[in-house]
Amino acid sequence: MNIQLNPVGNMKLLSPVEVEHLQQSATSQLYQLYRNCSLAVLNAGSHTDDAEEIYQQYQDFHIQVLRRERGVKIALENPPQHAFVDGKIIFGIQEHLSAVLRDILFANTRYKQHIEDGVNITHVTFDILRNANVIMPDTVPNLVTCWGGHSINEVEYKYTKEVGYQLGLRGFNICTGCGPGAMKGPMKGATIGHAKQRNSQGRYIGLTEPSIIAAEPPNPIVTELVIMPDIEKRLEAFVRISHGIIIFPGGVGTAEELLYILGIMLNPKNQAQKLPIILTGPASSAEYFNQIDKFIAATLGSKAQSLYQIIISDAEQVAKTMKSGLEDVLTYRKQTGDAYHFNWSLVIENDFQLPFAPTHANMLANNISFDLDTATLAANLRRIFSGIVAGNVKSEGIKEIRQHGPYKIKGDGKIMALMDELLASFVKQQRMKLPGSQYTPCYQVLRK
Amino acid sequence: MNIQLNPVGNMKLLSPVEVEHLQQSATSQLYQLYRNCSLAVLNAGSHTDDAEEIYQQYQDFHIQVLRRERGVKIALENPPQHAFVDGKIIFGIQEHLSAVLRDILFANTRYKQHIEDGVNITHVTFDILRNANVIMPDTVPNLVTCWGGHSINEVEYKYTKEVGYQLGLRGFNICTGCGPGAMKGPMKGATIGHAKQRNSQGRYIGLTEPSIIAAEPPNPIVTELVIMPDIEKRLEAFVRISHGIIIFPGGVGTAEELLYILGIMLNPKNQAQKLPIILTGPASSAEYFNQIDKFIAATLGSKAQSLYQIIISDAEQVAKTMKSGLEDVLTYRKQTGDAYHFNWSLVIENDFQLPFAPTHANMLANNISFDLDTATLAANLRRIFSGIVAGNVKSEGIKEIRQHGPYKIKGDGKIMALMDELLASFVKQQRMKLPGSQYTPCYQVLRK
Amino acid sequence: MNIQLNPVGNMKLLSPVEVEHLQQSATSQLYQLYRNCSLAVLNAGSHTDDAEEIYQQYQDFHIQVLRRERGVKIALENPPQHAFVDGKIIFGIQEHLSAVLRDILFANTRYKQHIEDGVNITHVTFDILRNANVIMPDTVPNLVTCWGGHSINEVEYKYTKEVGYQLGLRGFNICTGCGPGAMKGPMKGATIGHAKQRNSQGRYIGLTEPSIIAAEPPNPIVTELVIMPDIEKRLEAFVRISHGIIIFPGGVGTAEELLYILGIMLNPKNQAQKLPIILTGPASSAEYFNQIDKFIAATLGSKAQSLYQIIISDAEQVAKTMKSGLEDVLTYRKQTGDAYHFNWSLVIENDFQLPFAPTHANMLANNISFDLDTATLAANLRRIFSGIVAGNVKSEGIKEIRQHGPYKIKGDGKIMALMDELLASFVKQQRMKLPGSQYTPCYQVLRK
Amino acid sequence: MNIQLNPVGNMKLLSPVEVEHLQQSATSQLYQLYRNCSLAVLNAGSHTDDAEEIYQQYQDFHIQVLRRERGVKIALENPPQHAFVDGKIIFGIQEHLSAVLRDILFANTRYKQHIEDGVNITHVTFDILRNANVIMPDTVPNLVTCWGGHSINEVEYKYTKEVGYQLGLRGFNICTGCGPGAMKGPMKGATIGHAKQRNSQGRYIGLTEPSIIAAEPPNPIVTELVIMPDIEKRLEAFVRISHGIIIFPGGVGTAEELLYILGIMLNPKNQAQKLPIILTGPASSAEYFNQIDKFIAATLGSKAQSLYQIIISDAEQVAKTMKSGLEDVLTYRKQTGDAYHFNWSLVIENDFQLPFAPTHANMLANNISFDLDTATLAANLRRIFSGIVAGNVKSEGIKEIRQHGPYKIKGDGKIMALMDELLASFVKQQRMKLPGSQYTPCYQVLRK
Repeated sequence: MNIQLNPVGNMKLLSPVEVEHLQQSATSQLYQLYRNCSLAVLNAGSHTDDAEEIYQQYQDFHIQVLRRERGVKIALENPPQHAFVDGKIIFGIQEHLSAVLRDILFANTRYKQHIEDGVNITHVTFDILRNANVIMPDTVPNLVTCWGGHSINEVEYKYTKEVGYQLGLRGFNICTGCGPGAMKGPMKGATIGHAKQRNSQGRYIGLTEPSIIAAEPPNPIVTELVIMPDIEKRLEAFVRISHGIIIFPGGVGTAEELLYILGIMLNPKNQAQKLPIILTGPASSAEYFNQIDKFIAATLGSKAQSLYQIIISDAEQVAKTMKSGLEDVLTYRKQTGDAYHFNWSLVIENDFQLPFAPTHANMLANNISFDLDTATLAANLRRIFSGIVAGNVKSEGIKEIRQHGPYKIKGDGKIMALMDELLASFVKQQRMKLPGSQYTPCYQVLRK
Repeated sequence: MNIQLNPVGNMKLLSPVEVEHLQQSATSQLYQLYRNCSLAVLNAGSHTDDAEEIYQQYQDFHIQVLRRERGVKIALENPPQHAFVDGKIIFGIQEHLSAVLRDILFANTRYKQHIEDGVNITHVTFDILRNANVIMPDTVPNLVTCWGGHSINEVEYKYTKEVGYQLGLRGFNICTGCGPGAMKGPMKGATIGHAKQRNSQGRYIGLTEPSIIAAEPPNPIVTELVIMPDIEKRLEAFVRISHGIIIFPGGVGTAEELLYILGIMLNPKNQAQKLPIILTGPASSAEYFNQIDKFIAATLGSKAQSLYQIIISDAEQVAKTMKSGLEDVLTYRKQTGDAYHFNWSLVIENDFQLPFAPTHANMLANNISFDLDTATLAANLRRIFSGIVAGNVKSEGIKEIRQHGPYKIKGDGKIMALMDELLASFVKQQRMKLPGSQYTPCYQVLRK
Repeated sequence: MNIQLNPVGNMKLLSPVEVEHLQQSATSQLYQLYRNCSLAVLNAGSHTDDAEEIYQQYQDFHIQVLRRERGVKIALENPPQHAFVDGKIIFGIQEHLSAVLRDILFANTRYKQHIEDGVNITHVTFDILRNANVIMPDTVPNLVTCWGGHSINEVEYKYTKEVGYQLGLRGFNICTGCGPGAMKGPMKGATIGHAKQRNSQGRYIGLTEPSIIAAEPPNPIVTELVIMPDIEKRLEAFVRISHGIIIFPGGVGTAEELLYILGIMLNPKNQAQKLPIILTGPASSAEYFNQIDKFIAATLGSKAQSLYQIIISDAEQVAKTMKSGLEDVLTYRKQTGDAYHFNWSLVIENDFQLPFAPTHANMLANNISFDLDTATLAANLRRIFSGIVAGNVKSEGIKEIRQHGPYKIKGDGKIMALMDELLASFVKQQRMKLPGSQYTPCYQVLRK
Repeated sequence: MNIQLNPVGNMKLLSPVEVEHLQQSATSQLYQLYRNCSLAVLNAGSHTDDAEEIYQQYQDFHIQVLRRERGVKIALENPPQHAFVDGKIIFGIQEHLSAVLRDILFANTRYKQHIEDGVNITHVTFDILRNANVIMPDTVPNLVTCWGGHSINEVEYKYTKEVGYQLGLRGFNICTGCGPGAMKGPMKGATIGHAKQRNSQGRYIGLTEPSIIAAEPPNPIVTELVIMPDIEKRLEAFVRISHGIIIFPGGVGTAEELLYILGIMLNPKNQAQKLPIILTGPASSAEYFNQIDKFIAATLGSKAQSLYQIIISDAEQVAKTMKSGLEDVLTYRKQTGDAYHFNWSLVIENDFQLPFAPTHANMLANNISFDLDTATLAANLRRIFSGIVAGNVKSEGIKEIRQHGPYKIKGDGKIMALMDELLASFVKQQRMKLPGSQYTPCYQVLRK
């Protein structure tokens, strides 16, 4: 089966010069990335987080960018059949495919490869989001980022839907990492809340990255998909465009996200910033959050703890707390003249912006010690979890592990003990990988 | 808790003369009806089909129509709390409340009470729908009516969602009786299909009647709610505004609907009409449809059978068949110059238009015999099922039964035997009432 | 040339019962009225105010209402050619034609012929406007009625455009009597003002009546045309839907309008009402307004004078004054809870609501005396001017005059002298009829 | 008077990096250009084409780009008062100011200064237009470019309005050079045509260039203003985005435009291209077009003549001819798969793309001879007229002339004689400068 598609959105209007660049990109090593991301979105609704398995299944899938007088065509060979209805692609998937074209091939020709300057990293983050039409001026703060695991149990999943429903009833929009589990539930719930309030402007923003999109393919509710170049810019995008954060149960990725935002909010320069952070889950998750909270207390201290609120098994209370928090955000931004659509004034240090390559050397060299100020400690802890995510589901990480065995992590004994315990609980609770697969740890905590 | 609301839609703009009429209506015997219907929509999402139970629970609920310089206000005393979010009514419910005001109080002042002339009955049906903004010119035939029971099992419910999803993917809009079960599932499925295709114009029309709205309260997905005065105008509304019909498993109400449409389509004057009719359910419903089919064969004959198609456990095939059927409808209406938005040319005889009062006398006098032409036989069979629906869930019918015991039904022996069997199977399959309640038959088949 | 058209707006959706009513209307004596009004809107842009001349020119023009399955068609035989572009009717004219169908034939079947009860007269006025979609809830007070002559000179016309431009720049919408001259200028000017402010929601409402539409055909800028049944309902419509009034130079019609609004505002029950009234014209009109002002002073007194403001040759000041006046209107309506879209609380006595038939007997019997309270005197003076308008340009009045000679007007000597002087100045300034025609007075002031 | 404004459109969303670039631009030599263009649009409606005079009048006008957390502010000191209503800037002018910011400061940081490669010149032209949201996919060919003089007489101006009206009635959109005269009339007429057809989507595109914007400030009807970097890209923009061309009477600028499009269409590679070209004016312009036609015949020959059609004094015929021509364009583009929104396949040689600097040396060196092929001859003739436009109204040209006296033009004797005659007639007909000023020729034809 061969099919040719027109891209939608701003990929509809390309000049021959741009199309040629796209085609050059598409023949370079970038091609494999482009193909795989396209396959991931075509494969939405699939029930595996094993990218390799998907690639295996669709070995004869090919994609090509064709130049036409009117712009560009995307040619698909042997695409997954469930992306089509009566031979016509589902429009939402056509949008996602166009987003891949835009963010992988087109955006790639716009920025230099290695930007080290913070101001420019932020500019690139902003520019990618703006180019994706995600930045909307003249809107009040109502975008809630929901973080949480892609592999959560049924009770947790239902709870994320309930929270999304309560957020939707109150007119809030949802931003997530765009995959399954806690990234899908809040969106699904919000659609019902929005529908009951006849709110047809509901936004469901999904921010992903090339190395994870296959393992966590965009769920079909996502109406605005953006593929950020790396996890650091993805995290920066989350915290700059959203106005509040809810964290559901999850695994190492969720831990990475929590440490990221705490590290930034612990920065004295961000003291005045308003950003409601709520950790929440069903009654059965109480112990989970207890453990997380203990870990934060022991590593980053009570100041870090004071930055978030834990609410157990009360979706309505979560939404009400968020509502009140967002009112504070509005008041603050009005007072300071800050933009509503992008939090320019939040300070994010280089530690959190520069991509961390999850090599064995980097993992081992990562300094974990109480000598560090809490913000830096948070940054370094974040890197450990980030590396384990890579080792679990990102192909670069998986390859590393295959070649060199598990990452070795070391540091302050007390922290290492806590971390080992935390990671073990993630494994036990099946938060590392989707149930059904056997999880082999990609890390080894060196305890002295 | 007391709250005052502005109505929405065309109830926003009323003159003092009209408001006075409304208030007079609201103080008359109509008031009880108005109050009960309002309570029903405020109580959306409730899990009982026992109207009395609802009324019992909210005895201290009151509603009043207040006159203001700007129009009218709806004052609620002690309304169900789940209709509100942080003290503000959910907008969809506010719309439904306005629809009750419009269709019960406002429309009531517009028409004469007992219209017997078919042309005028059709005019009233049209006028009520037009006044509710349901009639849309300049749209192609894409409205699918889904009929089926309010009390269906989980497997059946999931299947109705699946069919709705496949219809939504193909851009079709949904019209149902607006309650739970098979009236909700197709809408819920269609929202997902519409969302995936980024179709924000999806329509979810719910047609109900005052005597059933409490037992089958409008589900919150319904965006266009209309309360027709009686079951006959409700049925006429269904067949004139929609372009195809899908029938899911159900009980006596569903049987009534099937006999209604078959009776009309059997009318020789409607021979050229195009109206795809599909009976469908999951694999477990195969036997159910087999039984229905046998009943039709034995009573109305093979010509009636040829009017519908039975598709078991293939939601995609249902949608594809409907698609092809709707293309025929379009072609036919183009050729004949018929309107797309209202099927004026379909002939509906007096037999099917005049309200049937479910009294014991009428039920007993109803002639069931092979001497009748098939259209008339269908009309009379329809009345029997209609009466049993009333005896089961409509308050007028329930009162009758309470006073005089079960309806007595008689007629041709062979047909009576088949009917007894069919009804018994509905009882056994819990299609008469929602599971949990004990069902006592409100009918007695007299077999000679 | 024969052509068939679909009506637009709510005339698109008619039931057979309604179409039959329309057709019956169209074959009755109403037909001539319908035909003539239709001809008038087809003839927009013509340069005569002599209805007879137009009718003479298009004697072979015929119009028919045809019944189709989908609704109704308007069939035109030999319509004026300039209503068409390449054989297709100009869309704005198609809208106006549909408005004639709606307001002459359709509305005619809805109301009783002679309503004497004030509340019901107001209801009918409201209902006609609502049915024409002119009543818009949820808008702030920004509708300015502009009154003034259809026959004004070039300098005055340019000035009305300038005022309209300044109103348009400030976001105000315009309502006029829909004909040429001072009814067209403000709309034309406002379109430029709206365009410069990129305001695409500008409204240009034209209110007319059957007996004057031919002499003052709707100018093509009018986007919302309503044909009220008589001058009294037309005047009531003006003052209830608009939020401020500007009066440009004009003839007897303009005098009628001024006396109408002053008479109403002089009613003690309307003491608290806010309604900015501005009389304005170019420098060359200063004497004209001086004369009007003197007439008001001498007849209705200084209290009446205090109700309006005269601004000469300062379009910007007019708009600024109106802006400040409309702010008062908003404040007042907020305080009192009055509707923004229709001034229900303004009291209009029967004197001003009941149609005045311009017969010789009525004109002669009309009591003009200082014994009357000022509101009643204003009402009676209004009737005199109303009668002269009829004698000048309405076919009923023209016929009266043709048969019985000029109207005889009598009353208090001092007032009669002032009136004679005022009317003579209108004649001299060519305000009675469009220049080019010779004006023969249709009245005779009996001075004792 | 000091005022701060928010830009609108895509200038609302800028990153600090971009704002800094803007500010650097604004402090560079580009600043004078930015200031002058801003002054020009603030001064819309002024009645002089003498840029110097305007600059003189507003010497104390200053403009600054300020950085704010939310983006950028434009600070104005002592701006022309007529750009404001009650202290608030007219929204259309705010849009034009934002367009200046976008096209002068923002776009300037995006492209290299001297691009010589044709493909890249076309890309820049496209990118500027796309960035201004002027390129709209999914629209049928309906954009008509109207060329003609800024200094035309009243009869000619009225005729351009009449043609615009007829185009507007037929749904066509208008693109012009955005100044007064023949650039304003067609837009003004089209607004009436669009309004009568209730077409609220009418487009009024104005393409200008920095060096002429002050002399020909954008008229307020222009809803989409783009400032192209130079006349060559401006001309390319005209011919690639529009689907037909109408040429009204004008002076040297109009002659430049005619020679430009003829030169391109004479290119054998463009033989199959469809582009209706109509020369038209009122009866009094017949002789003018006769002269132009003779000049074309004598220089470029009958093949060039066959590319256009001359229609005298028949606005309706012009619109009908254009309509039929645009149907051919649609057919052609469908067949070839060409884009509707940008004519990528039209070949424009370097001769027509590279900016021509109007120095005395370049003017003298310009080869005018029958030895050249007609396309090249057209290109060179175009340059002569382009130079004279500069000498007349562009500040760079005016300075050249002030320093070195009139340009000297030489070439084939026969052509030079014709040109001298043509230019003399432009002078005599007051087409060089607005009436009121004394015109001193900036050229001297060297005849041997």
